[in-house]
Amino acid sequence: MSTRPDLDRVRDFVETHCIPREAPVHVHDPLALDQTLAELRPIARKAGLYLPQMPLEHGGLGLSWVERAAWLEEAGRSYLGPGAMNCAAPDQPNMISLMRHGSAAQQQTYLRPLTEGRIRSCFAMTEPAPGAGSDPSMLLTTARRQGSGWRIDGHKWFITGALGASFAIVLAQTQEGPTQFIVETDNPGWKVQRAIRALDPFAIGGHGEIMLENCCVAPDAVLGEVGRGFEYAQQRLEPARLSHCMRLTGRARRALELAQSYVNHRHSFGQPLADLQQVQAMVADCHIDLHASRLMTLDCAARLDAGQSVKTESAMAKVFVSEALHRVVDRAAQLMGARGMSEDTPVSLILNELRPFRIYDGASELHRATLGRRFLQSSQGDKT
Amino acid sequence: MSTRPDLDRVRDFVETHCIPREAPVHVHDPLALDQTLAELRPIARKAGLYLPQMPLEHGGLGLSWVERAAWLEEAGRSYLGPGAMNCAAPDQPNMISLMRHGSAAQQQTYLRPLTEGRIRSCFAMTEPAPGAGSDPSMLLTTARRQGSGWRIDGHKWFITGALGASFAIVLAQTQEGPTQFIVETDNPGWKVQRAIRALDPFAIGGHGEIMLENCCVAPDAVLGEVGRGFEYAQQRLEPARLSHCMRLTGRARRALELAQSYVNHRHSFGQPLADLQQVQAMVADCHIDLHASRLMTLDCAARLDAGQSVKTESAMAKVFVSEALHRVVDRAAQLMGARGMSEDTPVSLILNELRPFRIYDGASELHRATLGRRFLQSSQGDKT
Amino acid sequence: MSTRPDLDRVRDFVETHCIPREAPVHVHDPLALDQTLAELRPIARKAGLYLPQMPLEHGGLGLSWVERAAWLEEAGRSYLGPGAMNCAAPDQPNMISLMRHGSAAQQQTYLRPLTEGRIRSCFAMTEPAPGAGSDPSMLLTTARRQGSGWRIDGHKWFITGALGASFAIVLAQTQEGPTQFIVETDNPGWKVQRAIRALDPFAIGGHGEIMLENCCVAPDAVLGEVGRGFEYAQQRLEPARLSHCMRLTGRARRALELAQSYVNHRHSFGQPLADLQQVQAMVADCHIDLHASRLMTLDCAARLDAGQSVKTESAMAKVFVSEALHRVVDRAAQLMGARGMSEDTPVSLILNELRPFRIYDGASELHRATLGRRFLQSSQGDKT
Amino acid sequence: MSTRPDLDRVRDFVETHCIPREAPVHVHDPLALDQTLAELRPIARKAGLYLPQMPLEHGGLGLSWVERAAWLEEAGRSYLGPGAMNCAAPDQPNMISLMRHGSAAQQQTYLRPLTEGRIRSCFAMTEPAPGAGSDPSMLLTTARRQGSGWRIDGHKWFITGALGASFAIVLAQTQEGPTQFIVETDNPGWKVQRAIRALDPFAIGGHGEIMLENCCVAPDAVLGEVGRGFEYAQQRLEPARLSHCMRLTGRARRALELAQSYVNHRHSFGQPLADLQQVQAMVADCHIDLHASRLMTLDCAARLDAGQSVKTESAMAKVFVSEALHRVVDRAAQLMGARGMSEDTPVSLILNELRPFRIYDGASELHRATLGRRFLQSSQGDKT
Repeated sequence: MSTRPDLDRVRDFVETHCIPREAPVHVHDPLALDQTLAELRPIARKAGLYLPQMPLEHGGLGLSWVERAAWLEEAGRSYLGPGAMNCAAPDQPNMISLMRHGSAAQQQTYLRPLTEGRIRSCFAMTEPAPGAGSDPSMLLTTARRQGSGWRIDGHKWFITGALGASFAIVLAQTQEGPTQFIVETDNPGWKVQRAIRALDPFAIGGHGEIMLENCCVAPDAVLGEVGRGFEYAQQRLEPARLSHCMRLTGRARRALELAQSYVNHRHSFGQPLADLQQVQAMVADCHIDLHASRLMTLDCAARLDAGQSVKTESAMAKVFVSEALHRVVDRAAQLMGARGMSEDTPVSLILNELRPFRIYDGASELHRATLGRRFLQSSQGDKT
Repeated sequence: MSTRPDLDRVRDFVETHCIPREAPVHVHDPLALDQTLAELRPIARKAGLYLPQMPLEHGGLGLSWVERAAWLEEAGRSYLGPGAMNCAAPDQPNMISLMRHGSAAQQQTYLRPLTEGRIRSCFAMTEPAPGAGSDPSMLLTTARRQGSGWRIDGHKWFITGALGASFAIVLAQTQEGPTQFIVETDNPGWKVQRAIRALDPFAIGGHGEIMLENCCVAPDAVLGEVGRGFEYAQQRLEPARLSHCMRLTGRARRALELAQSYVNHRHSFGQPLADLQQVQAMVADCHIDLHASRLMTLDCAARLDAGQSVKTESAMAKVFVSEALHRVVDRAAQLMGARGMSEDTPVSLILNELRPFRIYDGASELHRATLGRRFLQSSQGDKT
Repeated sequence: MSTRPDLDRVRDFVETHCIPREAPVHVHDPLALDQTLAELRPIARKAGLYLPQMPLEHGGLGLSWVERAAWLEEAGRSYLGPGAMNCAAPDQPNMISLMRHGSAAQQQTYLRPLTEGRIRSCFAMTEPAPGAGSDPSMLLTTARRQGSGWRIDGHKWFITGALGASFAIVLAQTQEGPTQFIVETDNPGWKVQRAIRALDPFAIGGHGEIMLENCCVAPDAVLGEVGRGFEYAQQRLEPARLSHCMRLTGRARRALELAQSYVNHRHSFGQPLADLQQVQAMVADCHIDLHASRLMTLDCAARLDAGQSVKTESAMAKVFVSEALHRVVDRAAQLMGARGMSEDTPVSLILNELRPFRIYDGASELHRATLGRRFLQSSQGDKT
Repeated sequence: MSTRPDLDRVRDFVETHCIPREAPVHVHDPLALDQTLAELRPIARKAGLYLPQMPLEHGGLGLSWVERAAWLEEAGRSYLGPGAMNCAAPDQPNMISLMRHGSAAQQQTYLRPLTEGRIRSCFAMTEPAPGAGSDPSMLLTTARRQGSGWRIDGHKWFITGALGASFAIVLAQTQEGPTQFIVETDNPGWKVQRAIRALDPFAIGGHGEIMLENCCVAPDAVLGEVGRGFEYAQQRLEPARLSHCMRLTGRARRALELAQSYVNHRHSFGQPLADLQQVQAMVADCHIDLHASRLMTLDCAARLDAGQSVKTESAMAKVFVSEALHRVVDRAAQLMGARGMSEDTPVSLILNELRPFRIYDGASELHRATLGRRFLQSSQGDKT
């Protein structure tokens, strides 16, 4: 698939080091991945594949968004790839936030060990009902000034990466508006209540449910400016969403590769499954979906590289790509019959990884309503 | 939903006894269910709900197929319901096979403890590639006459219910053609190699991979006549498939009920989710899919009660119902957002239960090709 | 397809008399059909197939709804069938309205010649924006008392059957509420401005745009009671909608029969198209859609025969059947390649006949929103 | 929509000159368009918009493929646009064929008047069953050497542009293989039997059915080399297909613009249709489909500009774009209710224009089978 030398190196790394380390022990064990990633990161670093998305001055490879699109797809063929190359969520968008809004001291304390892969982090925004889910105006977590610092109280939910994280970027309501705080997880006010078990089996650090109770932080825990927390969250969401699209395009391609190999080798009623027209049509539809998904993501990447807004395009890409990739993996699993339903193949696990992407980072229905309203409003003056 | 007194009793039993016993310990633990079912069966029996599908002379309630359709749907709202009422697969079709083809001695030894719920059984037909998957002509398991009895050798796969079963009905090739044998699982030639972990989390007795090696059985282990094993397998498949449709219609309805309750109570952007038109449309589509599914199944049930063939109708129902129910649960999960992806609700588990039904009992693609050929051949003489 | 003697007679009539009379001159010429129907009606009468839906005392055959379902499907294989048997819209629901709500004099003057096939009629409810489209509360046509009678003014639109009709049942707003009036079309206040050309090519009497200007009618022009016009309109809509489902199921089946014959006889790349799996799958999906459509309609028919409400079931059937039949014909046309796009076959015309059914009698989106709200409200008390 | 000055000029031309000239007289009258196009071409020429796709030396504007993509979309908003700018099928691909393979004399006689818009042409390849439809190996039209020239006999079908064409490029079988001939339509051996009436209402020159009987042509009627006719046909098909995608993207966008304006202005149940979430979601899906369609086409355009093969990518684009645009217009028509079904709006006509594109230039099913086989073969060595 890949034809550029750098992509071949990513592919080799994934084939040689990541895929062979994929193992049942990782399934639904958020901490089991850490050990394997610790093995893989030095190899990725030696291969010159580490931290592709960060600028050189932060120890990264300085890839453009367009370059990243191809790299993240290749890395994403294994659930271990992006973590090994330290370009996985939620650390990737956290690094970008710290780089943009963090003070020199915050960068020294939090960004540096993150880029070096010594610690993990999480982003604590989502709240259980009736708090901030898809509607951020319902933010119930509060930060009140106490002494020179702040006291944070609230309930967070589906905090990906929370288990094993060293710090969290927490969104909380202040009198001046929503604000982001850096909270170290050994703060006695930060309590991981449980890992929420969800369909996706390989989230690094799982999905935590968190209680923030009398969680006191120093004045310099504020990330960026007080009151601009939502704005920062919005800014990080678009690239984060696109990076997901890139990584998961790789994952869906992997499922398709496995299904193609299966139908090429398996016979039924006297002929290879690959000779059946329904199989051919399903394979064709998978490639069409992958191709269109890539083009949607790449279009956004090029706009980001050009410094343009991708507000509308990234929402369209999120809806299309999340649904198209799910179709790809659903077909791949179907092509493999009973085997495709079993954990004897990664395909069934990838199917469960892909399904939540139609909800995480904004459910399709929410994006559709927002997009539809935006298009209709912008065409209100049309005389046609 | 149910409006008849007998169905209300089934519903009460499921609500009062089954749903409260649903528990995380059952997930992907094929034997954990047995204990809970052992608790539930006496309650079901006392409530007059036990063994609805069997005739009175075998201790059952003697329900017609049309009656069963409604009962199995109600029972199927919980994954514990059908097992509790002893109308779950694979014991249900095994009982029917033994009743039809078993000798008096076989019925005494195997059918009776099965109907009484003292033992479990399985049906060993499917083989891994290159053996009999969807194409039964590829049957590789052999039974050779040895002394007065038989020696069976082969490799079976995806044998639902194998773990904890007391006996298996095994399909094997003989010189006279495919034949069904009753094999007790303490036979040293029957080896359960492993439970295959698959998407569906609640198969009673899991999905076993089995080696039959020098598995010697007595002459009276043959079920029915030698050489008619495929014919019997075909006969059991149609009702088995329809019973799945009935039970899983209940499961999908449960997911929809949970989703409806969720959108009725959860607010976003200042209004209940239930007030959003996209939500209303998704709910409507779920009910339309459920209604059509029920009608497809009921139509077959009425034909079976009338002694008619359902060869074509049951294949159409299998394709439609398996796909429609999956759409229902996929929408239900989507309606519940992140919660719908978590195991905090049964909906995500039901989604994983429903997905394999598009493959088990004949993949949709296989049925479509067979149906299409049949319709085209029967219309070949048409002059239009 | 049909297996009952009476249905065979309908089928023979359609094959022998209707299909051979289908002709290009009928396309988009609302009056051209009248002449052909005049030829066909005596034949239908002689064959004992005339007016199946009306009771014996009105000269009909007194068929139940369940019987009608099969008859109307058979008749509907040709666009000439239902008109020939005088069970086509809008005369069919108008006859039912007159039978239910008409005075003895009205029945003598209007119902009798209608049942005898001597005249045609129409139902004038829909108005162009901003009037009563799908939302009847926007009714702008008014009827004001003037002398002992009424004066009606308004603008009607998409009035099927208006061209060549002898009278119209007009819905107009009065001080006492919406009311139905019988207006003879030679009334100088009734002006057919034009036939609206729409996708469906074979509407008997076309779709008229009507101006009602100072249209004076006598006191006995009121149909039923003053102020109950909407209630009557609602009552007629459900059976009217179901009758459409029945007739159009026949039309879609005809398209499928033609496509099956095509793929059975046409070769490509060395084999009959019928041997290609994609073709087989498309044919299978057509039959599944037809089967499910029939069952949805039949279920409503049985409820109507039992005197039950079909408010919810008929709305579900309308959405499902209109969309399923459109899929059937879309696939049939696709199966026939370029020929399926041409008017060399009725299939392309049937495709254009079927498309508007997703809008006429209530757009799918409207039904979905209404159904969804209804289901959600009725489940509000659920504790699940 | 367009933001570049040159595209604004195209848009102005279409809005000011083409759309106002759209008229019912053009519907299904292949020759009625000629007169209107004759009026429009001088205006297009004066506006510097004429012949965008041809190089400067042939009187064109020399646009690259990427530039053309945007121009053809803008031009395609009206069915009159591409013809007015002389970049419509089948003249556009015929000009490219003549430019590539034509002798200097052929270019003088045929290409020049074509580029100048003085004559029209057609491409005669497709044959009715059992001849060359989608399978070119079934070519039945023959060309036999006779004297120094050739005699052509055969039956052609669905020859777009045939009515009113001055010459045809005819594909016929010779002893040396399939060969392209230029046949002038006043040749007594060329007989247009009829215009085949098909769903698409605006084909310039209609779709002709042609008999070639003893059609004698001179030696210099051969286009390019004898025996390479299929190769040339393949070469023209890919760009021709992509140009269709570009033009029809414009047509679908026009339908969406009209639907957006409709729902912005029309009220139902007390609110603008634009406020309904189902409407917003349908509008969003239309934009997502249009965006993805554009990206698929643009990707091929960039490859063509870079001299790369687009064999696979253009087939994927054809399948995706033809289906996506049909969905867009189907939704647009649905959004407009009964009006969307009528010819009061161009939307219903555009719906009928778009439907055949899923068949013309290769049916979706054919492309899917070919693509699937190609992908499966190229992955046969994969070890995964």
